[in-house]
Amino acid sequence: MQDSTVHVRVVSPIVTRGFRKLADLKALEYPGVTLSHAEIGTGPGSIESEFEAAVSVPGTLAEVLRAEREGVDAVVIDCMGDPGLRPAREIAGIAVLGPCQTGMHVAAMLGHKFSIITVMRRLKPSFENTAALCGLSTKLASVRSVDIPVLELEEDLSVTTRRLVEEGRRAVEEDGAEALVFGCTGLMGCAGALREGLLAEGIDVPVIDPIPTAVSIAAALVRVGLSQSRTTFPAPPQKQLVGYDELRAAALPAAAE
Amino acid sequence: MQDSTVHVRVVSPIVTRGFRKLADLKALEYPGVTLSHAEIGTGPGSIESEFEAAVSVPGTLAEVLRAEREGVDAVVIDCMGDPGLRPAREIAGIAVLGPCQTGMHVAAMLGHKFSIITVMRRLKPSFENTAALCGLSTKLASVRSVDIPVLELEEDLSVTTRRLVEEGRRAVEEDGAEALVFGCTGLMGCAGALREGLLAEGIDVPVIDPIPTAVSIAAALVRVGLSQSRTTFPAPPQKQLVGYDELRAAALPAAAE
Amino acid sequence: MQDSTVHVRVVSPIVTRGFRKLADLKALEYPGVTLSHAEIGTGPGSIESEFEAAVSVPGTLAEVLRAEREGVDAVVIDCMGDPGLRPAREIAGIAVLGPCQTGMHVAAMLGHKFSIITVMRRLKPSFENTAALCGLSTKLASVRSVDIPVLELEEDLSVTTRRLVEEGRRAVEEDGAEALVFGCTGLMGCAGALREGLLAEGIDVPVIDPIPTAVSIAAALVRVGLSQSRTTFPAPPQKQLVGYDELRAAALPAAAE
Amino acid sequence: MQDSTVHVRVVSPIVTRGFRKLADLKALEYPGVTLSHAEIGTGPGSIESEFEAAVSVPGTLAEVLRAEREGVDAVVIDCMGDPGLRPAREIAGIAVLGPCQTGMHVAAMLGHKFSIITVMRRLKPSFENTAALCGLSTKLASVRSVDIPVLELEEDLSVTTRRLVEEGRRAVEEDGAEALVFGCTGLMGCAGALREGLLAEGIDVPVIDPIPTAVSIAAALVRVGLSQSRTTFPAPPQKQLVGYDELRAAALPAAAE
Amino acid sequence: MQDSTVHVRVVSPIVTRGFRKLADLKALEYPGVTLSHAEIGTGPGSIESEFEAAVSVPGTLAEVLRAEREGVDAVVIDCMGDPGLRPAREIAGIAVLGPCQTGMHVAAMLGHKFSIITVMRRLKPSFENTAALCGLSTKLASVRSVDIPVLELEEDLSVTTRRLVEEGRRAVEEDGAEALVFGCTGLMGCAGALREGLLAEGIDVPVIDPIPTAVSIAAALVRVGLSQSRTTFPAPPQKQLVGYDELRAAALPAAAE
Amino acid sequence: MQDSTVHVRVVSPIVTRGFRKLADLKALEYPGVTLSHAEIGTGPGSIESEFEAAVSVPGTLAEVLRAEREGVDAVVIDCMGDPGLRPAREIAGIAVLGPCQTGMHVAAMLGHKFSIITVMRRLKPSFENTAALCGLSTKLASVRSVDIPVLELEEDLSVTTRRLVEEGRRAVEEDGAEALVFGCTGLMGCAGALREGLLAEGIDVPVIDPIPTAVSIAAALVRVGLSQSRTTFPAPPQKQLVGYDELRAAALPAAAE
Repeated sequence: MQDSTVHVRVVSPIVTRGFRKLADLKALEYPGVTLSHAEIGTGPGSIESEFEAAVSVPGTLAEVLRAEREGVDAVVIDCMGDPGLRPAREIAGIAVLGPCQTGMHVAAMLGHKFSIITVMRRLKPSFENTAALCGLSTKLASVRSVDIPVLELEEDLSVTTRRLVEEGRRAVEEDGAEALVFGCTGLMGCAGALREGLLAEGIDVPVIDPIPTAVSIAAALVRVGLSQSRTTFPAPPQKQLVGYDELRAAALPAAAE
Repeated sequence: MQDSTVHVRVVSPIVTRGFRKLADLKALEYPGVTLSHAEIGTGPGSIESEFEAAVSVPGTLAEVLRAEREGVDAVVIDCMGDPGLRPAREIAGIAVLGPCQTGMHVAAMLGHKFSIITVMRRLKPSFENTAALCGLSTKLASVRSVDIPVLELEEDLSVTTRRLVEEGRRAVEEDGAEALVFGCTGLMGCAGALREGLLAEGIDVPVIDPIPTAVSIAAALVRVGLSQSRTTFPAPPQKQLVGYDELRAAALPAAAE
Repeated sequence: MQDSTVHVRVVSPIVTRGFRKLADLKALEYPGVTLSHAEIGTGPGSIESEFEAAVSVPGTLAEVLRAEREGVDAVVIDCMGDPGLRPAREIAGIAVLGPCQTGMHVAAMLGHKFSIITVMRRLKPSFENTAALCGLSTKLASVRSVDIPVLELEEDLSVTTRRLVEEGRRAVEEDGAEALVFGCTGLMGCAGALREGLLAEGIDVPVIDPIPTAVSIAAALVRVGLSQSRTTFPAPPQKQLVGYDELRAAALPAAAE
Repeated sequence: MQDSTVHVRVVSPIVTRGFRKLADLKALEYPGVTLSHAEIGTGPGSIESEFEAAVSVPGTLAEVLRAEREGVDAVVIDCMGDPGLRPAREIAGIAVLGPCQTGMHVAAMLGHKFSIITVMRRLKPSFENTAALCGLSTKLASVRSVDIPVLELEEDLSVTTRRLVEEGRRAVEEDGAEALVFGCTGLMGCAGALREGLLAEGIDVPVIDPIPTAVSIAAALVRVGLSQSRTTFPAPPQKQLVGYDELRAAALPAAAE
Repeated sequence: MQDSTVHVRVVSPIVTRGFRKLADLKALEYPGVTLSHAEIGTGPGSIESEFEAAVSVPGTLAEVLRAEREGVDAVVIDCMGDPGLRPAREIAGIAVLGPCQTGMHVAAMLGHKFSIITVMRRLKPSFENTAALCGLSTKLASVRSVDIPVLELEEDLSVTTRRLVEEGRRAVEEDGAEALVFGCTGLMGCAGALREGLLAEGIDVPVIDPIPTAVSIAAALVRVGLSQSRTTFPAPPQKQLVGYDELRAAALPAAAE
Repeated sequence: MQDSTVHVRVVSPIVTRGFRKLADLKALEYPGVTLSHAEIGTGPGSIESEFEAAVSVPGTLAEVLRAEREGVDAVVIDCMGDPGLRPAREIAGIAVLGPCQTGMHVAAMLGHKFSIITVMRRLKPSFENTAALCGLSTKLASVRSVDIPVLELEEDLSVTTRRLVEEGRRAVEEDGAEALVFGCTGLMGCAGALREGLLAEGIDVPVIDPIPTAVSIAAALVRVGLSQSRTTFPAPPQKQLVGYDELRAAALPAAAE
């Protein structure tokens, strides 16, 4: 039997301090798993567009490199756009997971089809693209949104919950969803309320809260010695890099080994 | 932080005693996870055909019911045909996982495409069908076989390993696989040898050993309160059942709650 | 010109006697085709779940073996879940057809897209899975249900017909279906009423009654010497089988030749 | 029990007389099914290109209209390009079948995947397109060709057979085919020789001879009252038509009813 | 820098004179691109069925041959059924484009998913088939129709525009379209009105007018020396052709070089 | 007739000066189209990994904003990874095209299937992902590589050409490609040599040189008033951005209008 504790770090790819509370992450720990948290230094206040996702990547990659240096076992990127997941997997020697990719696969394991309940309608193409890249297009029943911006989700939780239940019910009844995945990590902690609200309407489907799920799956993969494929994600070639001093190490393959 | 230990039971859907050794399963335990094992009373000696899979199902369902009665948290079916997975999920109140479905999703999380390395060529359609049902057809690079029957895999481990490396290398180089999944749970424990053999040829891909992986993922799902969708797998309606006395409870929905 | 008569047997995979009337099957005969009927000895009263489908398989396989011994030319399994189709094809030397697979392919031959009209909503994933395995996912417009249990379909035929027309109309107008397939063999004989009801609303689509269709297609295949592929469905390997005495022959490949 | 005989006409969409022998078609008759034959008056000598297929269509449509006037029950178009199938289905009140579409669906019913063995490599895109339109792309393992033009197939049957066996074997062993379909109706009658040749090499797969198969399936559909969907193939609107006097009736919906 | 002017001819595959006005095409010219126009001599008055499309093909092929003889650089077929596109590409040494195939690819370049807004509901299968052949099924959000026959589109342009805006809005809001393509070349010139009407409702999506778009793309391809693949569209083999005197040259490969 | 000249700018997302020569771009101009060029200030020396693509994006976005300020009509990103295409389309009011997406759609317009011939094997998943996002997975025959790094392509052009012909031939003969697309914009200008080399081996397929093609298509789209969908690519919400001063305007929607 293995003795060691698995250390998973959640990296929030935004510059807004306090949006993700360490206490909320600590509450997710269980025997054999410990969590830590980091935010990025340069980048957007929140992520609701491809532009914001793009400018969150360099800062995120720097945090992934730092996590590996500090002996962390696995990193979970704290955004449903999985920003930087692919480059991070190239430059890191430890496992890096995205909550969207992970949540979609878990949903497909548990139910016949799943829907994403996200914050803004404009994110729909992005989720359909991620499903396509995961090979899961046929499992994605729909993408629905509550039309509340990320940074306003906690302003009135009763409104957020009511909208989640409403769209969740329509996903099941109109779109054929048999499992639900939150389409924004800002909704972390709302899964219980959504599930209760749906049960009250006679709807019994799993609600996947992507950050707790990705953390738990990351730890499970570490336990069986699995990480991203080095053939899919080989270290980048050694090469000139102008700017991005904190990523210099990634451009030198020796450092990434 | 949660304190409880998660109890996962591996159910081998065959009547051959000693094929799966409890000690090998106990070696998979880690902090917070405990394993147990069961075999079935009626059914085939091993599973290499749709016929054998079919006649393993009633016995497997009986063991799933028993596991739930005994307080087990999750069941993993010990065969890459995932025999009985769907009916078991209907009659059980606990999580039931199949190693094939789980292994395929994990492979798709880790690499761009994956191949199955199984025992006999005749199982190829079955794996392609499972991939289709998982929505993962586009991620399945190929199904390759070592052409050694299940019950002869351990006769000469050096031959088995050599054949695994040979087919694994061809899966990567000829078929485009970037991760490998064993296509028979009888290969449990060979992942390390296959991975080393491939590394010796300059090939660096994850090798997914389905039983350890499915056990670890099952425990991870239990930790975050997830199980199969009740909308996809509702309890069967109450109804006449002739024969199958040990499954009578499953035909009575009250018992299945 | 061939002289012989083709003998097709319909095997109802349920223990409820009298549900399928021989006279109704005899009415399907035409020059050169004769029909017979069998039910199973152990199994469920009707099939509305994966569990019931699973426990209908061993009894169905026994009837398929018996049909072959009695000189029948082809067997049609009398349930839209096609329970036991794949193992039956392995153990039988004669053609075995499932009405769901057959009905879906016929529908795809006749119209651009088709819908399934079945009894209960819970069967939807099962039909979508069969379509995926047939390679026909893009041809399946929708699965709709009349929400009447199998054994109550004949209680009030006017209600059943009204509900069929209602869901058939919505399948065409809302889902884009251009052909319809009954999703329960318990609806056998209702195709005329559904087609008339739809014509009265100006909708002209083929209505595929799966049992008559599968019987007719089975006879057609026998006429041109075709049966299931022995490469897809090879005889099972000779092996130990505990229980299932009536299936012992199937475990001995000599018997299955 | 139905008494009538079903009359199926095979329409060869070429101007080469004697290519299709009536005696060969008469040999396909069985109790309850009678066959007749027609060729077209204007069009190509044989069909090996999209151009030749296109100029075979008006003549084929004229023959379909004539068959219906003469009381034929169903028409089978005698070319694996299924030329004119869709317009013929619009203008005819009787069932019209294409051997390619029909053969592909039958192959998919019988085996996991199928390959087409055709005459010339240049036809490959056409078969892949037909598979896509049938929704069967995932079932098409490959398209292989013997590289013998249609009108030379019978010059040396031993060469043709040897090439068929060679490509058939490669389709099974290299491409994963588990059933084979002739990709040219000029190969009618060669299925037995191909099947024997493959069995001699230990390969046991169904060989679908498209014309006998489509005739038999056409008769089976007539027996159960099925024909193409009027929603997919509605009669053309009444409208001006310059030229094509023999098709004038088709431009007048009254005639097509 | 290239100096020559690119000459694109629009071939309307109908016999109705004056339906396409040369002045409307001349208005599409821009520096370096000149347009001309032709109609066919035998064929239908307009195209709203597979039958009409089929009988438009021989006349269209004759015009394609004539365009090449006259030194035209590229031909655009003026019908969203792309009638004769494939045979024309075989017999022509110049580029031939279909507005449907081209419009769909352009729509997929510009937005996540697109819808077709066409004239009659009955054309829906045809558009879904074209999308499948283009490999773009997953990009086609829906096919909607204004239910106005081709030759009546200009009778009351305010009605046509109102219906276009109505169906365009529903395509975006209900079906998830993010770009629109006219499904009838008879709608040429209406794109501005549709786009303005949608903007007035707060909907901002590209509206692709297929003839101007295909003309512009055709000229762009000529500029970079690209044309259809000779491997996909090889010249037809030399062979007997009865009738179709104006196409005799196409049956002689020398002429098609 | 339109009079204005269309101005297309090619933005090379690398810091290596002189890799792309303005003279080579000027040679692509034709009547009505003018070209200009820009490189980025911070980022990688060349792009052969997801990491390098990621760190090229902020610099690329800055150049897209500058191009729009300078009155350019359309931007083509000079890398087959299409880095920054999606965020650039959000922040720009002018058309932005990626050569990979554009080249794939053009290839699918011209031939039945196409292959990518790229520099390094490791880029294969990236091209398969782009094809999936374009909806063109079924059109992608294969991805082949010459195994020469980007910055060494011009070291010995005869070696590069020989390798291109070799892999191009295998793509056609072994993988079924009927058109070819260069998988690295560093190969610009080699299309003629590849096409000649293949013709010398009897292979006649279009070779798509992505930068000239994307430039020409971009100009064609500008001519018909088309640009990316504002529904797929809406301007980013106004929000805090730490760092990336040159992108501040993009975070303010007013600036992006």
